[in-house]
Amino acid sequence: MNVRFAVIGADHLHLFQMVDRLVAAGATPVAHAPNGGLVARYAGWRKDSEERSVDEILADDSIALVVVAGVPSERAEVALAAISAGKHVLSDKPGVTTLAQLDELRAALHDRPGRPWTVLFSERFENRAIGEAVAMARAGAVGTVVHVVGAGPHLLSEKHRPDWFWSSSATGGILVDIGSHQADQFLAVAVGADGPTATAHVRLAAVGNAACPDHPDMQDIGSMTLVANGIVGDHRLDYLTADGLGTWGDVRLSIVGTRGVIEARANVDVAGADGAEHLIVVDAEGTRRVDVSQRPVDWAEQFLADLADDGERLMSQAHVVAVCDLVLRAQQAATKWGDA
Amino acid sequence: MNVRFAVIGADHLHLFQMVDRLVAAGATPVAHAPNGGLVARYAGWRKDSEERSVDEILADDSIALVVVAGVPSERAEVALAAISAGKHVLSDKPGVTTLAQLDELRAALHDRPGRPWTVLFSERFENRAIGEAVAMARAGAVGTVVHVVGAGPHLLSEKHRPDWFWSSSATGGILVDIGSHQADQFLAVAVGADGPTATAHVRLAAVGNAACPDHPDMQDIGSMTLVANGIVGDHRLDYLTADGLGTWGDVRLSIVGTRGVIEARANVDVAGADGAEHLIVVDAEGTRRVDVSQRPVDWAEQFLADLADDGERLMSQAHVVAVCDLVLRAQQAATKWGDA
Repeated sequence: MNVRFAVIGADHLHLFQMVDRLVAAGATPVAHAPNGGLVARYAGWRKDSEERSVDEILADDSIALVVVAGVPSERAEVALAAISAGKHVLSDKPGVTTLAQLDELRAALHDRPGRPWTVLFSERFENRAIGEAVAMARAGAVGTVVHVVGAGPHLLSEKHRPDWFWSSSATGGILVDIGSHQADQFLAVAVGADGPTATAHVRLAAVGNAACPDHPDMQDIGSMTLVANGIVGDHRLDYLTADGLGTWGDVRLSIVGTRGVIEARANVDVAGADGAEHLIVVDAEGTRRVDVSQRPVDWAEQFLADLADDGERLMSQAHVVAVCDLVLRAQQAATKWGDA
Repeated sequence: MNVRFAVIGADHLHLFQMVDRLVAAGATPVAHAPNGGLVARYAGWRKDSEERSVDEILADDSIALVVVAGVPSERAEVALAAISAGKHVLSDKPGVTTLAQLDELRAALHDRPGRPWTVLFSERFENRAIGEAVAMARAGAVGTVVHVVGAGPHLLSEKHRPDWFWSSSATGGILVDIGSHQADQFLAVAVGADGPTATAHVRLAAVGNAACPDHPDMQDIGSMTLVANGIVGDHRLDYLTADGLGTWGDVRLSIVGTRGVIEARANVDVAGADGAEHLIVVDAEGTRRVDVSQRPVDWAEQFLADLADDGERLMSQAHVVAVCDLVLRAQQAATKWGDA
């Protein structure tokens, strides 16, 4: 199936990776709205994409898909308009930044089959070690899962950040923004991402500003403790990664089961083996590294197949909504870092 | 100074390490009470120690020190009696299992100089990587500390555990028992262990039984979120270590600062470098392993020096009390693992 797509909102570099995968999977970029700080760069890269107004894109029935990567706080409005126009949406994470936005999306999705609204939780879908860790845990590789522990530290990259990056209302806050990955991984392990979701709870959340005195509204550290299906998830995020790491963040995911531990080191095995995508399993048999290099990164193929038949292969619509709901509640419940 | 010491309570294998270090540092074992499941083994090992009654030991003014390693719930009573008899106490952790016991000890310590009651938090004092990580963080190696993350997984070793191990009232529970190490490390980093302590708070705690259905009172998993001086500590414990690890537990300590991260891997660098006591620092300069092999394990020497002049070199009396108080409050506040 040839899926023609348009971009509305070009403010995060994730856009380029998303479009690259879509095109490689067979989709065709036909248009982009003039919105966003990266739109000129996008237009220069995708000569096959034509600049058109948002209204023209939404009115064009030949366009089945809208890709959204604007300022986080503006994504929900675009997604709503596109879904209301009968299109599918592929959104950069976070897909929403307020519970009110999520309520509107829930209502718009109510009568629609399949998964019209996809938020791409790229840490799980792009990183083979994270993806395989989740899949192995779901398959019972370490027995009954008891505890999920995630870390998502990031480089601040102060000089390369747009103005909106420093506003917690624009990003949704650190738990909503980069915490979306962690909540996706937690729910994918604890509940499964491919069907209805169990109710998940926020037991504790905190956010703070540890090292950005010039940007007092910025949240550069946060953590949240989540619970679902009797499984606890402890997740921490920060923008405190030191330059000496050599990559953008020492992202890790540990899944503790009754018969072992699965540990993914997504981007780097610090002071250890070369390369990225490290997966280590400890169980009764021993300690071993699992080679994940042959695991396909095929989210775009699955996504396009879902789009064709209203499927939910990649993940369920309920999972997308549940992840967003969970991080929004965590953000809302968050107290100030270090407060008693 | 020749310190003559006696053992009252021989129920945990830590006793042998404690006595070994004391003797190597110059202390003399002179007696042991007949109490405890390991007392015959102790007597066989220390031919220089004579079996005497508790009353005889307490009445003997030539004995300056009592080493306590009985069933955890029975240690406080022994410590109290010894302190009341004017002696110093070196206790295995946990030193107390109830807040009432701690109150009694606080009262007994009120008029005494120095640190009559020492609880040996052996993870920090015996493991060079943990000890050095704490020392580096206190010295500002990674800027202002923001987050301390500890993991203390253990082998269950079901066949080798005495009956009392399975009773949470005997051990105090998982947060009190093995969580003492984590609380010691957290307070040592966040507050400093060598003086008065800031008030520490328990933000969240949970305990559960994930894999011991035959021992329903056993807690084989737990976690606690602690706060002190604006620094958050997330600590997890379990008895779920799989046999394939090859050691008793993949104990880790990560200290996140505004200018870098210090990570200690106490017993094993899983799927990585050989040996134990791994210390890794990531800062602006790069990523490096710190060789801690030359760091002395000299807690016994410091302890005996403290005993001689009522010093608090090893740690302050206030720190010992604060660690015990914190884990007791965490244990008391703990909800059931996985409950919302």
